[in-house]
Amino acid sequence: MRSAKKMNDIREVRVFAPATVTNVSCGFDILGFALNRPGDEVVIRKSSRPGARIVNISGCEKQLPLEMEQNTAGKALQSFLFDLGWNQGFELEIYKRMAIGTGLGSSAASAVAAVYGLNQFLEEPLSLPDLLPFALEGEKLTSNHQVHADNVAASLYGGFIIVRSIHPLEIVPIDYPQQLVCVIVHPHIELPTAVMRRILRNQIELKDAVHQWGNIAALVAGLQQKDLGLISRSLEDVIVEPTRGKVIPGYEEVRQSALENGALGCGISGSGPSIFALCTSFEQAENSGRGMQEVYRTLDIESDLYISAINDQGAKVVSVV
Amino acid sequence: MRSAKKMNDIREVRVFAPATVTNVSCGFDILGFALNRPGDEVVIRKSSRPGARIVNISGCEKQLPLEMEQNTAGKALQSFLFDLGWNQGFELEIYKRMAIGTGLGSSAASAVAAVYGLNQFLEEPLSLPDLLPFALEGEKLTSNHQVHADNVAASLYGGFIIVRSIHPLEIVPIDYPQQLVCVIVHPHIELPTAVMRRILRNQIELKDAVHQWGNIAALVAGLQQKDLGLISRSLEDVIVEPTRGKVIPGYEEVRQSALENGALGCGISGSGPSIFALCTSFEQAENSGRGMQEVYRTLDIESDLYISAINDQGAKVVSVV
Repeated sequence: MRSAKKMNDIREVRVFAPATVTNVSCGFDILGFALNRPGDEVVIRKSSRPGARIVNISGCEKQLPLEMEQNTAGKALQSFLFDLGWNQGFELEIYKRMAIGTGLGSSAASAVAAVYGLNQFLEEPLSLPDLLPFALEGEKLTSNHQVHADNVAASLYGGFIIVRSIHPLEIVPIDYPQQLVCVIVHPHIELPTAVMRRILRNQIELKDAVHQWGNIAALVAGLQQKDLGLISRSLEDVIVEPTRGKVIPGYEEVRQSALENGALGCGISGSGPSIFALCTSFEQAENSGRGMQEVYRTLDIESDLYISAINDQGAKVVSVV
Repeated sequence: MRSAKKMNDIREVRVFAPATVTNVSCGFDILGFALNRPGDEVVIRKSSRPGARIVNISGCEKQLPLEMEQNTAGKALQSFLFDLGWNQGFELEIYKRMAIGTGLGSSAASAVAAVYGLNQFLEEPLSLPDLLPFALEGEKLTSNHQVHADNVAASLYGGFIIVRSIHPLEIVPIDYPQQLVCVIVHPHIELPTAVMRRILRNQIELKDAVHQWGNIAALVAGLQQKDLGLISRSLEDVIVEPTRGKVIPGYEEVRQSALENGALGCGISGSGPSIFALCTSFEQAENSGRGMQEVYRTLDIESDLYISAINDQGAKVVSVV
């Protein structure tokens, strides 16, 4: 346990944490980026009643657990409180601004917002790398206790991040072209993350892996060099998309439509079913988005559309009392 | 066939092409860099006798084939001549400055030098990407007609390069910290490239591949961001080194010795047996090199030592007549 940190005079804080796109075609489990919208918000408020508890969850059709230990934001908050050695009372309100299980890192965003919010009560707030493990404790609830840091890190840091290593945990923020715009289409179909993991083969061909890491190396180079052509050519996934793409209805048509509308690349966001496309302008993103949604209209599947620049800030305070 | 290019008045050209380190720990088959030394030289001279031929090979203990079709430099030259549609006479002299089969891209360097040299006879020389396929035709002789572009591209371009893709061929030069110094120890043992390829498994674990591409993504980020600590932490290979390292006597001790002397990282150069270490100064490289050679002295194995900054120029003209 860390030595207890001093608390400041803040009574209540409202925090936003962004949705995130992970995997990003060739970057399975190691690459992610954050969006300006959607994103979740939490309110953390001091309370005279000792212990932390969730007092409100809104904006979500599904019933999310109110028990701290079962809720990703609650669990994240609790692990941070335990580390601080605080038994001060706190109330947590969670405002979900996106659906659950869409591949946009909803649970990660709530966990990040909770941890980032609690950090505001510290006289000397912790750094982002120090906060990350607490948010991960929450995120673990969604993935059978396996650690996937890509959503959490991208939501906390903003921008594009590489997960270099899980043990020890190391996140590498990387530069990217500021004009990138992401379009997301979320078809209303259910694909549990656990199932999407299970359909992946444990063994892959070495030659496919070499192909993939040529692309991920070049994608990182392209992002940092701001070379749009290189980014476009590198957004190719020969390992995961061939399997998961088949499980998402209309996936190949949606992808073709995005590319025909000029998108640099298109792939599955997280473990789906949301599909992202990276574009170079809002106009291009709107055209791509229209085409992508049209595919789902034809298939009689409802879908949501999000268009957003890359979020360069990560989690942020919305208001403080 | 390309339309025939016009020839200028050069009568003879001498070209240097650098040795190269490929794989670079986590960058198996897709990452390479060039050294200032060693490197091969070729002389290309116009001749009144039509057709191209090799008139001299020196500096090599092994008997290299004088037949154009069997020699990597000859084959590369010939494929370029064929493309140009030239039946002008040329003589080729090859000066090997490093041993064959050491893992330093000796055959690639000779092929690159030949192609780069012939390009000097053109009134409008071809670009490096246009030259690459001809050098690869030569390099193919050494790898059972499989295409490995890493050595050839690094020798031709200089610096660090990523092979993003083989079909279509795409090379991505990337920035790196100028202070990097490479030390190479070449133990006098024979490990045929074909055997070193054969001992690799065709199937690998997805989780190991993810680990590897986290490292290669972070290594590229670290090189471009000139972050020495990140480069050091990313120089880790969980796929190839565990197998090949066991076949090179003393490998683990050599590696430990280099790291104890402060090297950022240490790994197998190409398919070995040469071992490279990346250092941040010549002094550190000399200390590392001494320790690495000491291991082989203890094992009663002779070894050569090379210390070189990263070559930032690639193939170059030494003299023109």
